[in-house]
This record gives sequence, structure tokens and C-alpha cells, in this order.
Amino acid sequence: MASSTQSLATPSEARKAIRSGQMRGHTSGIAPGYAQANLVVLPRDLAYDFLVFCHRNPKPCPLLDVTDPGSPEPARVAPGADLRTDLPRYRVYRHGELVEERDDLLDLWRDDLVAFLLGCSFTFDGLLVEAGVPVRHLGCGSNVPMYRTTQECIPAGPFAGPLVVSMRPIPPEHVVRAVQVTSRFPSVHGAPVHIGDPAVLGITDLAHPDWGDPPVIEPGDVPVFWACGVTPQAVAMNARPELMITHAPGHMFITDVPVASLAVL
Amino acid sequence: MASSTQSLATPSEARKAIRSGQMRGHTSGIAPGYAQANLVVLPRDLAYDFLVFCHRNPKPCPLLDVTDPGSPEPARVAPGADLRTDLPRYRVYRHGELVEERDDLLDLWRDDLVAFLLGCSFTFDGLLVEAGVPVRHLGCGSNVPMYRTTQECIPAGPFAGPLVVSMRPIPPEHVVRAVQVTSRFPSVHGAPVHIGDPAVLGITDLAHPDWGDPPVIEPGDVPVFWACGVTPQAVAMNARPELMITHAPGHMFITDVPVASLAVL
Repeated sequence: MASSTQSLATPSEARKAIRSGQMRGHTSGIAPGYAQANLVVLPRDLAYDFLVFCHRNPKPCPLLDVTDPGSPEPARVAPGADLRTDLPRYRVYRHGELVEERDDLLDLWRDDLVAFLLGCSFTFDGLLVEAGVPVRHLGCGSNVPMYRTTQECIPAGPFAGPLVVSMRPIPPEHVVRAVQVTSRFPSVHGAPVHIGDPAVLGITDLAHPDWGDPPVIEPGDVPVFWACGVTPQAVAMNARPELMITHAPGHMFITDVPVASLAVL
Repeated sequence: MASSTQSLATPSEARKAIRSGQMRGHTSGIAPGYAQANLVVLPRDLAYDFLVFCHRNPKPCPLLDVTDPGSPEPARVAPGADLRTDLPRYRVYRHGELVEERDDLLDLWRDDLVAFLLGCSFTFDGLLVEAGVPVRHLGCGSNVPMYRTTQECIPAGPFAGPLVVSMRPIPPEHVVRAVQVTSRFPSVHGAPVHIGDPAVLGITDLAHPDWGDPPVIEPGDVPVFWACGVTPQAVAMNARPELMITHAPGHMFITDVPVASLAVL
């Protein structure tokens, strides 16, 4: 996906390649060491309730930045960047229905739009790998399995719905380390929400996730569940806003924020 | 301050004593082990910008709860409580000017009001004491010294202004522990913002704080600075909202949240 003439080692190089159309692929592995983010764009009149929803549900909705209404610049996490052009692919929803995928938002942008950037699990898996915790789905090139739970998020205004979790099968001797490592990073979903029996979350069949690929589980592996960034997208879609824009799956915004700087301790 | 007929050991007992008028004093030491909170009440039309301000400046503005517009119930941190009656004393500001102190908000409450509860330093000092870190101002019964810095908060809408910090003189052998202990509790201001030379924050004279009492500094003590909850109050006052209500200094809201449960690790 990467251009042969353009380095993608730093966030600003990567965003430049994306903006110019040289890079339209997945952002996994691009600008390693820097936090990537999910994008949710909503009209200003829904932004307050969405922000309250994120505050009330920080594990699935770890907010990295909110733009000023009408401004496409994420001034805290990537000064000078432009959220209308600096993601490789976008999805546009109207009244909760996907109507379009597109490469930029230049002719869609409005003075009343607010962009939310939320911590992303691309960052998250890297933390586990660095700590020596095996991440099964990375080993076989598949996507992490994600499940709708029976645990309701705390609602805010029109935003309500179940918590969505991702699941990683972890060898028992690595479970404590996985908790410790991810606890240090609340801004990329933080500590697990549950360890062990899927039924506690109302998940009846691990082999059939609601999103992503079926899990690869080795004998003895313990299922460990983390809050997932699909939650706020699903919740926002259910609220059927007149307009909502997100990144296309896997096509994230690359921030200037080193992952290491997000650790709380 | 406490009534002789009413126990103040638990949050619900304390709030009941406050609501009935039996307890009108400072809340320091009441319901030990439970988080207390600063209160800021604003009209809904300013609530979004204030919420964005809190998100952009989490160290001075650690948000514990936001009520639904018009609801006086902090449903996440104290279900069933009533923010119109359950603090021992309130301050009312109109267009940025203090106009009144009062015992309840029953006849002031409106359908468009939103209440913000923010982590409070009463909780914070207790954490240091429990970890064996001497807290000088507690030893002599004075208030912590607070200083306006030359460091600007990240603004949001009409909310802008300097970071206010509290300062605790810490013996050098306890400085690392003080950083570790407070880092675990981002929801009560978290890790220090600065250790050492006050000039780095633009503070010229430690002996003359802008709020609180002059510090008691023992030989060898290192000044350690934390973001302070006065920041959002000062910033909100500067925005001159038509109506703003806060707790009176020292007269906090007592939540049902055990302090220990706020630790990130």
C-alpha cells in the first residue's frame, strides 16, 4: 500500500502521503510507536450528548481529542493536520445508514461539524506484543474477534446501547502481565473488562463473533475481554444522526502522540 | 459541626444530615474513604464548552460525573442523591460576580441546568498521608497554598485562563513516593505538574499564595505542584455566565465512590 517514494515512518510523513493520495491502505504498522485513532464526526447539536456518553463510558470511548466546531484540525494530538484529508478512507452515514465510502471530506465538511478522535486497538495490540504477551490473531493475520455483550453502556441523550468487547485468548501465565500492561493505558481502552467465562458478559458462542474473525484459541488459553472502539460507533449509528462520518475499518488517523506518552504510570 | 444524633460515617448518612440541616460545616474528615467532589452548575448552553474544557485539561478538571440537563441527581457517583440539597453550603454567581451564599438550591434550580462534579483535593491529601508522605499544611491545620501560574489551560469556547496549582512542600526522600501515589489517581488531579523551581510555572513568591494559607516549609523540602480544582471555577467565573453555582469552599459533595476504587492501577 505504501508508496515507494514516500517514507511512512513518522506521523507527518504518513499523513502527507495519505493527503496526496499516495497511500490509501490500512494504517496498521504505519508510523510505528505513535497512537492511531478512530474518527467519529457528528453535527454540533449532537456533540454534547456524545461527549457526555464518552465521559460516562471511558473504557469503550477513550477520547484523545475533540475539535472546535467547524475546525477540521485536531489541534491537541496533531497540530496542522486536517481530518478532511488525512485519513486514507472514510465512511459516511445518513440517519444511521452507510451511504458512501470516500477518500476525503472536502466537499462534505460543514461549519457545524465536530470531530472526535478515540483511542484505537492498533495501539493496544502493540503494547501486549512489546510486553511479551502472545496476541493470537496477529500471529495468523486475522482481525480480533469482537462481541456484543448484554452489558448496557451508561446512556447519554440519544446515545445508548450495549458494550462491545474484543477478545484475546491469553496463555494463563501471561494474564496478569496483560492486565498490568493495559492498565497503564486508559486512553487505549485500559484494563480488561472481564477475564474468563464469556457467559458473564452474555456471550454464548466465542466461535461466532459479531465483528472480526473467529478466534484462534490454543489449549489452556484464557479468554480476556477488553472494551472495544466499535461501541461508540455502533451507539452513534443507532442514534440515527442526520449525518455521521467515521474512518473506514482499519483506516485510522495517525496522531503525533507517542504511545509511550499515554501511559498513566 | 457534626450533629450529635446523626452518624456521619457513610456518604448516605452524611448527605441525610446535610439535607435535613443538621450538618452545615466543612466536609473534611466526613465519610472517610469516600471521594468528595467540587460542584460546578452551569446552564445547558454553556455545558458543552465546559465539558470540552474539562476534557482538554484533565489534570485541573478531573470529571467524576455530569448530570442530565435539569436533573439534580448524580446518578453515576451517588444514585438517589440530590445536588440541590446535599451539599452543606453553595455559592451563586451571576455574570461572574458572587451574589449569594445559601444552604440549598431548591428555588433556584432550572430545567436547563447541568451539574459537573470534579475530583477534590480533600481526597488527595488523604492518599499522601496514607502512603506516609508528610503533608505540612495538615500538620498545622492550615489550608493548602494555591498559585496562579503563567501556564495557560487549553481553551474551549468562552472558557480560558491560567492553570492554578496547589503546592505541597515534600521532604526529598518522599518525592518519588508522592509522584507514584498520586499518579494512580488521575480522577483527583493525578501526578504533579511540576517538581522544584516555582519560577518554571511563573510563580515568583511562594510565601504569598493567591488562595489558601502561606506554606510551612521545612529545611530541605522540595516544592511539588499539582493541578488544582480552583482552575475550572476561576475559568468558569471568567466566562461570566448568566448563572453559575458552586459549592462553598470546603463544603463539598460526598459521593458513594470509595477512593480506592478510583485508582487506575
